[in-house]
Amino acid sequence: MSTWLLPENIADVLPSEARKIEELRRALLDRFRAYGYEMVMPPLLEYLESLLTSGGNDLNLRTFKLVDQLSGRTLGLRADTTPQVARIDAHLLNRQGVTRLCYAGNVLHTRPRGLYATREQIQVGAEIYGHAGLEADLEIQQLTLDVLRLCGLAKIRLDLCHAGVLSAIFAQDAAAAAMGEALYEALAGKDVARLSELTLGLSDVAREALRVLPALYGDASVLAIARQRLPNLPEIASALDDLEFLAAQAAQVDGAEVTIDLADLRGYAYHSGVMFSAYVDGVPNAVARGGRYDHVGQAYGRARPATGFSLDLREVARISPIEARSSAILAPWKHDDALRASVALLRDAGEVVIQALPGHDHALDEFACDRVLVERNGAWVVESR
Amino acid sequence: MSTWLLPENIADVLPSEARKIEELRRALLDRFRAYGYEMVMPPLLEYLESLLTSGGNDLNLRTFKLVDQLSGRTLGLRADTTPQVARIDAHLLNRQGVTRLCYAGNVLHTRPRGLYATREQIQVGAEIYGHAGLEADLEIQQLTLDVLRLCGLAKIRLDLCHAGVLSAIFAQDAAAAAMGEALYEALAGKDVARLSELTLGLSDVAREALRVLPALYGDASVLAIARQRLPNLPEIASALDDLEFLAAQAAQVDGAEVTIDLADLRGYAYHSGVMFSAYVDGVPNAVARGGRYDHVGQAYGRARPATGFSLDLREVARISPIEARSSAILAPWKHDDALRASVALLRDAGEVVIQALPGHDHALDEFACDRVLVERNGAWVVESR
Repeated sequence: MSTWLLPENIADVLPSEARKIEELRRALLDRFRAYGYEMVMPPLLEYLESLLTSGGNDLNLRTFKLVDQLSGRTLGLRADTTPQVARIDAHLLNRQGVTRLCYAGNVLHTRPRGLYATREQIQVGAEIYGHAGLEADLEIQQLTLDVLRLCGLAKIRLDLCHAGVLSAIFAQDAAAAAMGEALYEALAGKDVARLSELTLGLSDVAREALRVLPALYGDASVLAIARQRLPNLPEIASALDDLEFLAAQAAQVDGAEVTIDLADLRGYAYHSGVMFSAYVDGVPNAVARGGRYDHVGQAYGRARPATGFSLDLREVARISPIEARSSAILAPWKHDDALRASVALLRDAGEVVIQALPGHDHALDEFACDRVLVERNGAWVVESR
Repeated sequence: MSTWLLPENIADVLPSEARKIEELRRALLDRFRAYGYEMVMPPLLEYLESLLTSGGNDLNLRTFKLVDQLSGRTLGLRADTTPQVARIDAHLLNRQGVTRLCYAGNVLHTRPRGLYATREQIQVGAEIYGHAGLEADLEIQQLTLDVLRLCGLAKIRLDLCHAGVLSAIFAQDAAAAAMGEALYEALAGKDVARLSELTLGLSDVAREALRVLPALYGDASVLAIARQRLPNLPEIASALDDLEFLAAQAAQVDGAEVTIDLADLRGYAYHSGVMFSAYVDGVPNAVARGGRYDHVGQAYGRARPATGFSLDLREVARISPIEARSSAILAPWKHDDALRASVALLRDAGEVVIQALPGHDHALDEFACDRVLVERNGAWVVESR
């Protein structure tokens, strides 16, 4: 095997792409900061149990395991940062009030999500802890739209759903709850035949509700239909109220289109309220996902209301139209104090100055050397190339 | 075991520290960029053989191993980024001219270097490929001093040594070369008794040279003594010339002190020329290390002249006197278009505006809310708190 060969679905990021990722990373973190989100950096490695307190079997299968030489215990390489941030909120910061946290870091997956999907994402996200009201969900959704716009993604479709619908149905029928995973898969695939089969033995309320869910998608007018066709349960009514409020708010954002899909319950076991996915034209998968997950902190000793979102910055950089390549000044290499001073001055002023080492060409990917530093009548000056 | 417990020598980075690390990270990457270094992001995981092409047994012991489900092969979690960057230069970019590359990312170690050392560093570094001359070593040393100064570390001691001294001695005496590791340890510990013992059976030239090395440390005047006492071999003379040139250049930098230690050969198996370590007052370990490693790219199909440096940003942030906490504006939460517009305006202008969610206190670590956004006669204005 060649030593330069990388594992499947693992790749280097070369200069022009790396620069773009770095610029978007800063733009996103600065925007989080402008909203008052405090940055945290949880470790890449933790004891496996700590990483898998929530998220179910899927997260377990996606998490790389290794052995800790110091303790002999199994460590996991994080596949998702959110549970770590919930741990920090619950245990380390332990504040009573609202806490806004954000992060940007690598996550690794044992298997790719698709043929060309990377196994090493740069997960960037923001979370609000300590507020159960819709104001927090609204802020997270507005922040999501705001940062996607910053990345140059002008037209965004925000798809809303609510974990409360399914949990209201499950609360009515223990047999339905026991089939959670199978029902979720049938709903996610809008597999009506399979749903009919699975729901045969359920109570009337649960059966009717589950069979109608796959049809409840479209624009916000779907909510009115849902009110008529879903069982009249307080938790369902409250979920639909939440979605109505948030859909109306998101529709006011420039360039945002809102859709509802009550059967899109990806991550339903983890989420506890409103969930959303952001899509852009021409990209099949969601570019950002978020939602409420009030019970995740419980495993760390303190359940707190929580809502947040995250995205894969490598994917967002791939589809972002923003151009990161920048211009530079080519300078010669000489033992000359005046030259050294001029180069330092230009660099301090924010210019990129590349000193040509003696006897070499310079092939550059990231920088376009459109100017040169040259000596004219004893002074160093910048000229067009 | 509590789920919030982290593995030994692994820690979360909480808001105020994270902010400081983030600010220094940007300052360093911007400075690299101003010198024309292009950023790359090699993956955290690679096939183990690719990660261990150089660096010897120590790197192997420090590297976490895990199994790739897709290939069944052993992967390593990188413990050092430099070999990856050398791979990118040699194989992926494959340029003929000079290439300057930089990086910032996590590296993980199976065992900590000391009782309180972290096993998860943020390694930040810069490398020049393709130029064998001292100009490249000089640029790397000047860049090292420049970025440490940016981090607020004003007084820096640059300690120089040269791998060529030991390799010249080893070239004279195969028996000495065979004892490489043991000799290195005795030299690093300045263990004169052990050195006497180890060198008993060696040739006169090798024995005398190895026994004199531990005494050859101090300011640049040591080089003159070294010329008298070390064997008169061309490779040694050339190494001492290199050190003399670089010591004189570094001494011109404000706040930099230069020392020589010809027995400080940490990483001698990896390095091929000038090596250096940067120290600051009150910190026992080097804050940055660098040097020349011309043969590392060979394993990836193309040996290229190479020199660079790296540091652990977490450690540099810990000792940096720079203060990162910043001020913010506290705003109320209301359904009010004028309020929303004012908040957006302030955020776009670079202010941190934290909206107080209904019914909560705000305990903040990173931000000091020294101002409030309040309504006065129908207009939203910022006032001192």
